[in-house]
Amino acid sequence: MLSDKILNASSIAVVGASKTVTKRGYQAIKILLEEKYEGNIYGVNPKLESVLGVKCYPSVSAIDEPVDLALITTPARTLPDVLEDCGKKGVAGAVIIAGGFGELGAEGKQLESDMVETARRHNIRLIGPNTSGMINMHKNLNLVGLRDAPKGGIALISQSGNMALTLITEAKIKSKVGFSYYVGVGNEADINFHEYLEFFENDPNTKAILMYVEGMRKGRKFLQQAYQTARKKPIILLKSGRSSTGKRSAGSHTGALAGMSEVARTAFKRAGIIVVDKSDELLPCAETLASLPAIKNNNVAILADGGGHATIGADELTDLNVNMPEISEKTQNKLRAILPHAAATANPIDVAGGADDNPQILAECARILLHDPNIGGVLVVGLFGGYSIRFSESLAYAEEDTAHQLGKLVKETNKPIIMHSLYSFAKPHSLDLLRYYGIPVFDSLELACKSIGVLAEYGGYLRGYKSKAKFVFDMGAKAKTRGREIMHNARAEGRTALLENEAKELLSLHGGMVCMDCLAQSAEQAVAMAAGFEEKVVMKIVSPDILHKSDAGGVFLNLKEPEEVRNAYTAIIENAKVFNPDANIKGILVSPMANEGLEIIIGTKIDDQFGPVIMFGIGGIMVEVLKDVVFRVLPITPYSARNMVNEIKSVKLLNGFRGKPPLDRKAIQKLLLTISEIIGSYPEIREMDFNPVLVYEQGLNVVDARIILKND
Amino acid sequence: MLSDKILNASSIAVVGASKTVTKRGYQAIKILLEEKYEGNIYGVNPKLESVLGVKCYPSVSAIDEPVDLALITTPARTLPDVLEDCGKKGVAGAVIIAGGFGELGAEGKQLESDMVETARRHNIRLIGPNTSGMINMHKNLNLVGLRDAPKGGIALISQSGNMALTLITEAKIKSKVGFSYYVGVGNEADINFHEYLEFFENDPNTKAILMYVEGMRKGRKFLQQAYQTARKKPIILLKSGRSSTGKRSAGSHTGALAGMSEVARTAFKRAGIIVVDKSDELLPCAETLASLPAIKNNNVAILADGGGHATIGADELTDLNVNMPEISEKTQNKLRAILPHAAATANPIDVAGGADDNPQILAECARILLHDPNIGGVLVVGLFGGYSIRFSESLAYAEEDTAHQLGKLVKETNKPIIMHSLYSFAKPHSLDLLRYYGIPVFDSLELACKSIGVLAEYGGYLRGYKSKAKFVFDMGAKAKTRGREIMHNARAEGRTALLENEAKELLSLHGGMVCMDCLAQSAEQAVAMAAGFEEKVVMKIVSPDILHKSDAGGVFLNLKEPEEVRNAYTAIIENAKVFNPDANIKGILVSPMANEGLEIIIGTKIDDQFGPVIMFGIGGIMVEVLKDVVFRVLPITPYSARNMVNEIKSVKLLNGFRGKPPLDRKAIQKLLLTISEIIGSYPEIREMDFNPVLVYEQGLNVVDARIILKND
Repeated sequence: MLSDKILNASSIAVVGASKTVTKRGYQAIKILLEEKYEGNIYGVNPKLESVLGVKCYPSVSAIDEPVDLALITTPARTLPDVLEDCGKKGVAGAVIIAGGFGELGAEGKQLESDMVETARRHNIRLIGPNTSGMINMHKNLNLVGLRDAPKGGIALISQSGNMALTLITEAKIKSKVGFSYYVGVGNEADINFHEYLEFFENDPNTKAILMYVEGMRKGRKFLQQAYQTARKKPIILLKSGRSSTGKRSAGSHTGALAGMSEVARTAFKRAGIIVVDKSDELLPCAETLASLPAIKNNNVAILADGGGHATIGADELTDLNVNMPEISEKTQNKLRAILPHAAATANPIDVAGGADDNPQILAECARILLHDPNIGGVLVVGLFGGYSIRFSESLAYAEEDTAHQLGKLVKETNKPIIMHSLYSFAKPHSLDLLRYYGIPVFDSLELACKSIGVLAEYGGYLRGYKSKAKFVFDMGAKAKTRGREIMHNARAEGRTALLENEAKELLSLHGGMVCMDCLAQSAEQAVAMAAGFEEKVVMKIVSPDILHKSDAGGVFLNLKEPEEVRNAYTAIIENAKVFNPDANIKGILVSPMANEGLEIIIGTKIDDQFGPVIMFGIGGIMVEVLKDVVFRVLPITPYSARNMVNEIKSVKLLNGFRGKPPLDRKAIQKLLLTISEIIGSYPEIREMDFNPVLVYEQGLNVVDARIILKND
Repeated sequence: MLSDKILNASSIAVVGASKTVTKRGYQAIKILLEEKYEGNIYGVNPKLESVLGVKCYPSVSAIDEPVDLALITTPARTLPDVLEDCGKKGVAGAVIIAGGFGELGAEGKQLESDMVETARRHNIRLIGPNTSGMINMHKNLNLVGLRDAPKGGIALISQSGNMALTLITEAKIKSKVGFSYYVGVGNEADINFHEYLEFFENDPNTKAILMYVEGMRKGRKFLQQAYQTARKKPIILLKSGRSSTGKRSAGSHTGALAGMSEVARTAFKRAGIIVVDKSDELLPCAETLASLPAIKNNNVAILADGGGHATIGADELTDLNVNMPEISEKTQNKLRAILPHAAATANPIDVAGGADDNPQILAECARILLHDPNIGGVLVVGLFGGYSIRFSESLAYAEEDTAHQLGKLVKETNKPIIMHSLYSFAKPHSLDLLRYYGIPVFDSLELACKSIGVLAEYGGYLRGYKSKAKFVFDMGAKAKTRGREIMHNARAEGRTALLENEAKELLSLHGGMVCMDCLAQSAEQAVAMAAGFEEKVVMKIVSPDILHKSDAGGVFLNLKEPEEVRNAYTAIIENAKVFNPDANIKGILVSPMANEGLEIIIGTKIDDQFGPVIMFGIGGIMVEVLKDVVFRVLPITPYSARNMVNEIKSVKLLNGFRGKPPLDRKAIQKLLLTISEIIGSYPEIREMDFNPVLVYEQGLNVVDARIILKND
């Protein structure tokens, strides 16, 4: 956990204090004074006595009072020395403004790692480098230069100063929400995303966490932390750099590994993070999640005055996977009793002009709807706030009363209301009142829909939490002695690739269904083994030096008679020797011919940001042409395994396509879990590939298996 | 073409004139007077002398001056009488405000058709019913009650009064653009969408056409008109009601057939319409297309000041299929010469603080970029308009100068610039200047991207126009005598389904490659035919009373020897008689067994809104599990046929999947064109189904064909 001395520092040293008004070392002191920072400020500059009345010292270590945090405004090359000096003083943290590190190639990377090494030696934690700074709104600790940011419950973590500026400006103009903190993560050289997350989870002023991410250095730790944090506080995240041009741009910007792969998206969602795709959605979603209860049952009613908005809203909610159930007859009767004849009551509800002289009818409808146990939240769309503008000024009071009623209704029912109003530009008092009660008001219909959509998404996450996966391996706990021996033997022979029979044995040690292979080391052994199977057999060369067995003439199919098997044995050995005279031949694998089944493919690899991930897809066209595969960060739970199988687009092929019987999904799920367990048991595995696996009505058959260990 | 007397009426009768201030018949007269309508106004109410000084008449026919247009505010049931009265007077058009017609079930539909019949008898054209009205901004002819709409070049056609209000409000607050017309289409009972389109195409005040559509009654005519209009003026369209809940909502709203199918989306795009999915995008896209030149080569440069906006912008443009080419070394050198060392110049261009004390540098960069022939347009993102706010007030003049330069640059190069600014809330004069030059300014980065995206999309449409399809059939022009005879024979026998051999013959008459079928009417004929083929043969029953041949034991495969063929003949006839003793047996089709090939499916049907459409997909899993099919409204051109083949997701299967040779795409395209020609030649065809068609390395084989004629 990050020390309070960093983000809640009680004293600041500004290294590079200056009297030049355009310099950061001047501006930083000025803003700390103007915003009435609650702690002590010290300047550091050997050439100055004081800046704006703040006393300057020749070095940090020369300051005679305790210093929690140093804001370092001097250039990159000065960093190692400045940090040594901070170390002498026992400073807990430093904010490094300078760029010119990891984002600028090899030389910068070296400078960055030297800097981090110095900091570690002195137990100094670093924010940045290449950051716009940090703000603690509740302590008036502003190290950024951004003024007038509104105070409130959103902690903002951003890898772009401009995006922070955008979000803070937007909050100021369009909402009543504000920020608890802003942290510019910069190059993430020392303090990582997950540490900020943990800190904000425990910060009493923070209600929601808003993140703009370009690249992430420790994805798995972030997922682990997010998985804990999201249960308590909603996390809203935009990750840019998903296009190759965007990656190029992000790379030159933060020096981090950018990219929003499907792996990342799924992993974030599984960890309970609300992932948005548009920067326009970031603040509205954070505002909503910071101030309103989540929707418990994914059911929303739209309350409209006029058809167009209702229709567009229904389309949008449908796209967002939010249910719009038809309202029960009982509730519809209550609505009909107060609405004009032309009103629609099924959902969307259209008051059809019924609010024109009586805006309060909207509160009455909302009350009826929210007291229906089947309705989880209400989206009001259209004209509220404008009845006084359109019809009669005196309706302003009726609208204000309506706002009070709606606000109290949220508290009373613990269900959310979101308001879309095309009159928000006119700033009527009624809309301000709604915001006072925590009901966000949007002039964009789509953003209003998205906001209620994320309340439903977050509710779904909280509901399903128990069945979701952890991102922590119980490393090695289930490893088998024989499993370790297999790997040890491979290493002893200088191999990183397990032989096919070794890979299959490992799988079966952990309960995986593999075809019954036998390794024959003579023709007569092969004949005996073949005789033991009812089916015809396939024979495959086993050699660490022959990876592509077919290319080496190392695979013979459909053998049964002793003579066939014997000849095949000889032929395979000869072919192998022709292919590679020095090949170390371990023997020939004899196995029964697999029955026809549906081909599936399962593999694992190590993702740069998230560590071990597993992939599943249906073989052939589905994988090769349509890229119809799903990913999960390992380990997975039975719940995840079931979802993986259900999520592939071609899942219908498992249901019994064209009159065929349904295939054994449970066997696939079990195999996915077995593979997850193996990855968790042997950290030395780099990647696995089970291709093909044949799935039947009952059970499956892992026909080929490949396991590669990490180097060294 | 709509008469000028309707949308440009020189005189108006307000039927239902009233002195009650809440009534439409009062408000309509009041607003016409206040907005200084250029024509004459007459009230119609037998009980009143005058309203607000406007003389009232007992009936329309009693008015002693000419009347172009009647605004009818009286209830639905009065309509037939009022229209009779208008007819006596020779009124050219009427705006029907009342609801209660087609949107309210059978009774309302009857009332609607009576009303339309009366109007047709008197040559009166109707706007509505169930409309909020119509505005001609340039004549101050406001029949809506919406005040202060800004005047300008956008014609707005909307099926929702609320959406019109939303768009007009948005234009007023966020842009400098305005409207030439607003038409509330309502139930579209008489005047259809395409007629408004044609009128606006020819209206000198209209620069772009903005449409909100829930349902459309004459889709094909609309496409034909749009195809003409879009070449001259951009059309921007949102069609809602794509979800089932949205459809329910739209249905109760306009009584029209709602739904945004893939057929509609593709058809609109092919007609050159800019289709948007979010209501937020409507006005920004219209504003942009009304005021800026289209992008000629789909290449855009992003000019940023800071990384975050650049990265998000690059992601968005990529999603919108806009190219962001790497800037040429020559142009990059010019940029480097004026930008700071830390700037990025490849694209996105990041001035990296270079504009902080010199905003003009943005104009210099834009000039360099737009003078590069490879760059079609520039998107400036970030902070422009705010340099004076962030750094020094005096920079305001530099920003204004920059705005003038950017504005002139657009005229000089005939290439567009779009501005994203997070300072638009502060309304700096520089941003107003940009709007004066027709450069739109957005506070949403995503909307700025979308706007430059539609300039590229529209440019692409104009570039590709010649190769695109018409939506007009040259009906019957290519029909063959023998083709007509086949249909005539079927009709004569009381059939609407052609027999398999008839369907195949029709296809081959128009040049389609079908397998060589012969119809045998005796066992010996069958034996002789089979002997004539090199391959083994398949034999299929031909009977109008047996549609599912296999179920009736009516298909035998893999026959060669005379004895086999003879036995098969007898067996099929017997099976058929068991299946249906009364079946009219036409004979047995003998054809060579088809070689293995890739199965494709082609079909046609009549779409409710757009008439004949064609569907193409790859058979089996691709169609049945993944719904991987493409549609086009017929007729199609060679260009469309090629696109159809390229657009299916599984197109790789045609390229030579897993080492197989590529398949004959040209043969597929030719077959699609043949089918298009047949649909255009015989209007009596209702649907066709060619399934399966087998495609080979060279050529293809239509194995089964089904053609159904329209009833009667």
